[in-house]
Amino acid sequence: MVGDVPVNFEMITAAAHRLKEHARRTPLLSSPFLDRIAGRRVFVKAECLQHTGSFKFRGAWSAITALPDTARGVIAFSSGNHAQGVAYAASLKGLPAVIIMPRDAPAIKIANTRALGAEVVLYDRVLEDRDALGAALARERGLELIQPFDHPQVIAGQGSVGLEIAEQARAEGIKDAQVLVCCGGGGLTSGIALALEQTAPQMQVRTVEPEGFDDVAQSLATGQVVENPTRSGLCDAIVTPRPGALTWPVMQRLCGQGLVVSDTEALRAMALAYDRLKLVLEPGGAVALAAAVFRRDEIEGDAVIVTASGGNVDRPVFMDALAEEAADAKR
Amino acid sequence: MVGDVPVNFEMITAAAHRLKEHARRTPLLSSPFLDRIAGRRVFVKAECLQHTGSFKFRGAWSAITALPDTARGVIAFSSGNHAQGVAYAASLKGLPAVIIMPRDAPAIKIANTRALGAEVVLYDRVLEDRDALGAALARERGLELIQPFDHPQVIAGQGSVGLEIAEQARAEGIKDAQVLVCCGGGGLTSGIALALEQTAPQMQVRTVEPEGFDDVAQSLATGQVVENPTRSGLCDAIVTPRPGALTWPVMQRLCGQGLVVSDTEALRAMALAYDRLKLVLEPGGAVALAAAVFRRDEIEGDAVIVTASGGNVDRPVFMDALAEEAADAKR
Repeated sequence: MVGDVPVNFEMITAAAHRLKEHARRTPLLSSPFLDRIAGRRVFVKAECLQHTGSFKFRGAWSAITALPDTARGVIAFSSGNHAQGVAYAASLKGLPAVIIMPRDAPAIKIANTRALGAEVVLYDRVLEDRDALGAALARERGLELIQPFDHPQVIAGQGSVGLEIAEQARAEGIKDAQVLVCCGGGGLTSGIALALEQTAPQMQVRTVEPEGFDDVAQSLATGQVVENPTRSGLCDAIVTPRPGALTWPVMQRLCGQGLVVSDTEALRAMALAYDRLKLVLEPGGAVALAAAVFRRDEIEGDAVIVTASGGNVDRPVFMDALAEEAADAKR
Repeated sequence: MVGDVPVNFEMITAAAHRLKEHARRTPLLSSPFLDRIAGRRVFVKAECLQHTGSFKFRGAWSAITALPDTARGVIAFSSGNHAQGVAYAASLKGLPAVIIMPRDAPAIKIANTRALGAEVVLYDRVLEDRDALGAALARERGLELIQPFDHPQVIAGQGSVGLEIAEQARAEGIKDAQVLVCCGGGGLTSGIALALEQTAPQMQVRTVEPEGFDDVAQSLATGQVVENPTRSGLCDAIVTPRPGALTWPVMQRLCGQGLVVSDTEALRAMALAYDRLKLVLEPGGAVALAAAVFRRDEIEGDAVIVTASGGNVDRPVFMDALAEEAADAKR
């Protein structure tokens, strides 16, 4: 930590070093069909191919490998991608992981998290206080809490995506591009922004959120933190009430105007990724591609880079996406 | 050409050199869930992420870049992955491409091939002689025919997949493994087998075909070329009547016993690739993964490598696959 900056570039390169040989270096994909629809070259950073199906493994591994040797295990609150990332990273590291989930979480998510080696502790959303339960468990068992985004080493780990984007863009001959990032609490966004600030300062990060959950876009527009009402949505992976305490100052300093897409546009982007990239994306992992395709007038430059941040989507939702009309059918 | 060997290792390394910077080096993916179901480590070479959604781009680019400078264009007979591979490779190389397709080919395949820059010539399966039509066009316009598998430079190009498998397996610490290859005419299989013979001789290639189209498995078992009745099937990309004239001697010399899976098993493997790898596979591109999962007793070793050779699948077929019960649901 340098002064009041809780995450810096050196922490990102150190996290990337710890991730080497453990995280996948995901490919940067493209398709002439996407270029035509978007009106510029489109490059897709396929983090859905990361271990456990989302970028979250990076932050989890980064945080777990930065723990002191005295750590006896980790604990996290999540029923989604963060849970799977923490569970798998801890099991690879040989550390116990406790994941706290609401009792009404989908059975498949509970089963997957257990299968990745974690102990799942269920709580009742109405009758129990999640934070108190977690704090008691952490104290009893000496577990370290891994926050999903407001954790310096988690942000540093997600920043490794930015280092790879800079290198892969250079290899593709991309000099200048906006980088669209699927944005929930801002861990991935702020990590990538800090990495690109040093390695590709001509690139600008733009956040992409679903309609109704555009707390970051509104915060960026007004210059102060704006909250969404807390509720669930199709893009469940990135439905968060407000930008994080650590991530917001970074986003405010480094990001351009926030982009917003509809749920239907996210579904249509999923269908495009299916048709043109052979990738499975979840709705929250498809919003950046949706913005590249459906908000082309709000983007600048000859090329755009989008993060495809995750692919953990229930089959019925994916089938809904495939039932959408092909986005290029009318061209 | 050395003696009567129409493809050799040097041609494969030369093709790989021409492909560098043009083809994607596709990732070798894995999932602890697949390992558990298969009873050994499973590594998936994701050629569905190749340009145009299948490995066919490699052979097409290899063949087109080996043409004499006097070539005025190329011609191919295909309504599938080979058509798209040839069309895109020719357009990148700035050469005209004519693709001959039956008039009743799916509209989306015709549209995709045209969108990739090729001229599509349609013929009537009943009234017209495809080969005569192609020969006349080739003569008139000075076009070179690119066969889908019985072409030395096409086989050499597909062999680049084998070079990458050898390198990526080494990086993963895999010393010994059977390599399961989705097999139609045998271009990919024989290319990979020739590449591995030199770079990873401890690895053995096994062909995988759909039930009812197991001409290669039967030919390998009997030692002489066996034919299937010509008809269509779910695994359309690899439904061929007999092994190729150039590919058969290579397969006979280098491949182990052929594996055969059912259409339902191919669909269930597609669902597994969706759940666990976030990849879109077509039925013919999923048979090798199906064999790893559903024929575990017919495979040897602690690790198995499977090719996921393509992902061009119509949405209704993919939705059928997602409607299959999860292969690990009973575990």
